[in-house]
Amino acid sequence: MSSRSWWGWGTDENALSPAETDALVNRVAALIPDHDFTDHPPPAPQSLPVPPPRISVPATLSAVFSDDVRDRLSHARGKAFRDVVRNLHGDISHVPDLVARPRTERDVIDILDFCSAEALACIPYGGGSSVVGGVEPRFDGPAVTLDLGRLDRVVEIDDVTRSARIQAGALGPHIEDQLRPAGLTLRHFPQSFEFSSLGGWLATRAGGHFATLYTHIDDLTESIRAITPAGVSESRRLPSSGAGPSPDRLLLGSEGTLGVITEAWMRLQDRPRFGTTVSVGFDDYHDAVRATRTVAQSGLYPSNCRLLDPAEAFINAGAESPGGVLILAFESADHPVGPWIDRAVEIATDHAGHVLSQRDRGERDNTGNHASAAWRSAFIRMPYQRDALARRSMIVETFETACTWDHFDALHIAVTAVATDTVQRICGAGVVTCRFTHVYPDGPASYYSIYAPGRWGSTVAQWDEIKSAVSEAISNNHGTITHHHAVGRDHRSWYDTERPDLFAAALTAAKHVLDPAGILNPGVLVG
Amino acid sequence: MSSRSWWGWGTDENALSPAETDALVNRVAALIPDHDFTDHPPPAPQSLPVPPPRISVPATLSAVFSDDVRDRLSHARGKAFRDVVRNLHGDISHVPDLVARPRTERDVIDILDFCSAEALACIPYGGGSSVVGGVEPRFDGPAVTLDLGRLDRVVEIDDVTRSARIQAGALGPHIEDQLRPAGLTLRHFPQSFEFSSLGGWLATRAGGHFATLYTHIDDLTESIRAITPAGVSESRRLPSSGAGPSPDRLLLGSEGTLGVITEAWMRLQDRPRFGTTVSVGFDDYHDAVRATRTVAQSGLYPSNCRLLDPAEAFINAGAESPGGVLILAFESADHPVGPWIDRAVEIATDHAGHVLSQRDRGERDNTGNHASAAWRSAFIRMPYQRDALARRSMIVETFETACTWDHFDALHIAVTAVATDTVQRICGAGVVTCRFTHVYPDGPASYYSIYAPGRWGSTVAQWDEIKSAVSEAISNNHGTITHHHAVGRDHRSWYDTERPDLFAAALTAAKHVLDPAGILNPGVLVG
Repeated sequence: MSSRSWWGWGTDENALSPAETDALVNRVAALIPDHDFTDHPPPAPQSLPVPPPRISVPATLSAVFSDDVRDRLSHARGKAFRDVVRNLHGDISHVPDLVARPRTERDVIDILDFCSAEALACIPYGGGSSVVGGVEPRFDGPAVTLDLGRLDRVVEIDDVTRSARIQAGALGPHIEDQLRPAGLTLRHFPQSFEFSSLGGWLATRAGGHFATLYTHIDDLTESIRAITPAGVSESRRLPSSGAGPSPDRLLLGSEGTLGVITEAWMRLQDRPRFGTTVSVGFDDYHDAVRATRTVAQSGLYPSNCRLLDPAEAFINAGAESPGGVLILAFESADHPVGPWIDRAVEIATDHAGHVLSQRDRGERDNTGNHASAAWRSAFIRMPYQRDALARRSMIVETFETACTWDHFDALHIAVTAVATDTVQRICGAGVVTCRFTHVYPDGPASYYSIYAPGRWGSTVAQWDEIKSAVSEAISNNHGTITHHHAVGRDHRSWYDTERPDLFAAALTAAKHVLDPAGILNPGVLVG
Repeated sequence: MSSRSWWGWGTDENALSPAETDALVNRVAALIPDHDFTDHPPPAPQSLPVPPPRISVPATLSAVFSDDVRDRLSHARGKAFRDVVRNLHGDISHVPDLVARPRTERDVIDILDFCSAEALACIPYGGGSSVVGGVEPRFDGPAVTLDLGRLDRVVEIDDVTRSARIQAGALGPHIEDQLRPAGLTLRHFPQSFEFSSLGGWLATRAGGHFATLYTHIDDLTESIRAITPAGVSESRRLPSSGAGPSPDRLLLGSEGTLGVITEAWMRLQDRPRFGTTVSVGFDDYHDAVRATRTVAQSGLYPSNCRLLDPAEAFINAGAESPGGVLILAFESADHPVGPWIDRAVEIATDHAGHVLSQRDRGERDNTGNHASAAWRSAFIRMPYQRDALARRSMIVETFETACTWDHFDALHIAVTAVATDTVQRICGAGVVTCRFTHVYPDGPASYYSIYAPGRWGSTVAQWDEIKSAVSEAISNNHGTITHHHAVGRDHRSWYDTERPDLFAAALTAAKHVLDPAGILNPGVLVG
């Protein structure tokens, strides 16, 4: 834990090496030769004038609270571009007064009771990977950040049902490590996998590994246990039920506003034994979209069905394809997937696609140009690259949405135009790319990346202007303000437009019951 | 509409013919020779002393209200066994005072405003096929039944996304009729299909055609529009979203307590072109369950995966198989399903199953003994058979649940033992059968049927005693009180045990916001 970066992504030792950084900067500099790539390293946390905590902790709870300055700084924000840059600037607004690390559910109850009694804001915190301001105490008044990192065990595995009871603070790799001996996997691999937690996934309705079918964490959930200020809530473990509105679905996406999720029974899978990946190139992006839609509606349910637009394919997979690249993959623990991939590829080629490369699991890729393998490697390293570029005044950030297929063309054109125009106006240059992270029979989740040269000292404001413009375009074109990044504080105004007002009123009433003192993550979702 | 039975299932003209009735009675009499099969036909509705309405309707609303006695009687109950028998007895307790049939959403608003102002209970009513007391005004005081049958149109079809905006009062066949010209289908075929409505399916989280994957109506829902006493709520059409808790999931399963669902955007499918069905017999039921579980966890996702226990297979499919029969089917609009069914059958035979018969779509079945075809035909006619037997003092009813696989063996043994013992004690004879209606990777939905000789005048009380005993056994063995029949009034006490108390408190608070006067379906779910 000590090597976790307080200001940026991941761990200090996994940050880009000097050689990797040089190579990255040289690649970007070739595209944007006039940019000032001066490095702005992070300040020493101890040098920052962080005010002392405004909270006195009773002696009975002192063992679970930390007032360490680095600890508090590292919990002050998530890991969005604007979080990292503010850290680099030594911006110390909204640092939590204390960090609480419960060892048991009893500790969680005691901490919530203390916060309720003292009217202290309390922010549940898992891996801290929010990119929407979800864990930032962006308000006046004292704040306690409740870090669930100590509750990190897989408590129980049921290998008949294939499910496990897992504590909410467990990070992705630690969950998989504990499931591996049983031959099972949760197989939930968001980009944040290494540094995000089960509880965070549940609270934010995270999107996972699979491009189709059971992929949102919602669908992997058998039951949830949560501690609310009003008491403990635990649903019955069930594969499915029709008994009233789903209790779990109220907590899924509640973003720490209704209670602290402490554990959940999660649906698992056997570890896959068979797999095939094919990359298909297109000359026309419209053909590529139609091919992707047809695959999404075919009932084949590929594990991967990721359409990279031409810029995305070039930047992150080194593939030159004027209409983009569709990465199709199937995997199974039960059966060879040949008939599945064959039909999916047939659909793609029926829509004027041409196979770029194919790889079967276990076979080495010796072609040297396998688009999907290159893409996956880049995927894992992206946040570290982002940080290296953020230090050098580049604006590197993403946003995402989902819409029904009938609205996609118009949404995509509008969003891309607004993003390109705004980037051009504000930064003078820049690139906007798009990929589908997930596809449903009735629509894609499109994910946009922006790379633009900023001005040191202004990159957060520059990004915020871009973000505001594209969010308007999404909202005006039938998109959701978030498919899997959550609402947090950054998406709040567009969320308020998107959700029905009466649902907000109902949710507010539910919150008053579960959190009567209104201490949980104030400003998020309601209130 | 005029031919709809006021007392039993479906229409008068589709009831069993005299010859069919004789054949059915003879079959049952062969098993239970001592039973008194005297027919007790329904009374004439006009002969029943139904009290006059206690409600005065303003002239502006008179066009949408009916006080016709037959109309009121036919809306007094659902279509459970206990409903039908009480109708046969001329039991006129809890007949709604008026039936309202809105022609437009404006009418719905006006009716709710009238009920709120006058503090009149209002029961939303779709097809009236509830089997859990969900539409019965089982309380003192006046009641308005709000029948949505006039709102029955498919308003809009989006064939790119493959979804349609459908009014909530449309019954199953009318929905399919309107979708067929576009080559699309909702493909939601509960047993009640002919006489249940989209709004009813949504309000009760109905279970559909498919045994796996997208089958609960929840998963087919893109957005919902509802009129609540507090106003109109409409969610954005989206394939998926991570923006806060799902607004739709609060209305799904709300059973008319939060608002009146008036229309929804529903996900459609292309009409299937390929299909194969295989029946697999087993000598040992434990092998059959393990085979079914393995198929459910294989990632093959059959459209049918229905395990009939030996009694179910014999009674409804004429198949003698000491360990039961597993019916496996795949269907697709996109591709031949050979590799899928082949692997599923391989799994079944690996678990000591033996293929009984196989049928490809379009091929005639000339073997004369195809178990699944016989079963499907019986499925559609079952409620009519139930009514013919109910008139003859037989107790014919079903109950259902779902649980995780680890609990299934114990639940099944306990439920079967309790059901058999109670039936034996109360009726002296009887049969209990089981089938899986749906299977999930983490558990089956098991569905039980009971056939027992009752005493005329006591069959409702006899059934209620059986039902209470089996519900206790389900609840004590980690089952849900309902997988797809809903809670209604009959399951309320077990529902109260099952759902978290804090969720009930949150739901109650939400209801106070949406239905401040507490008029909507009082006694259901909360309050």
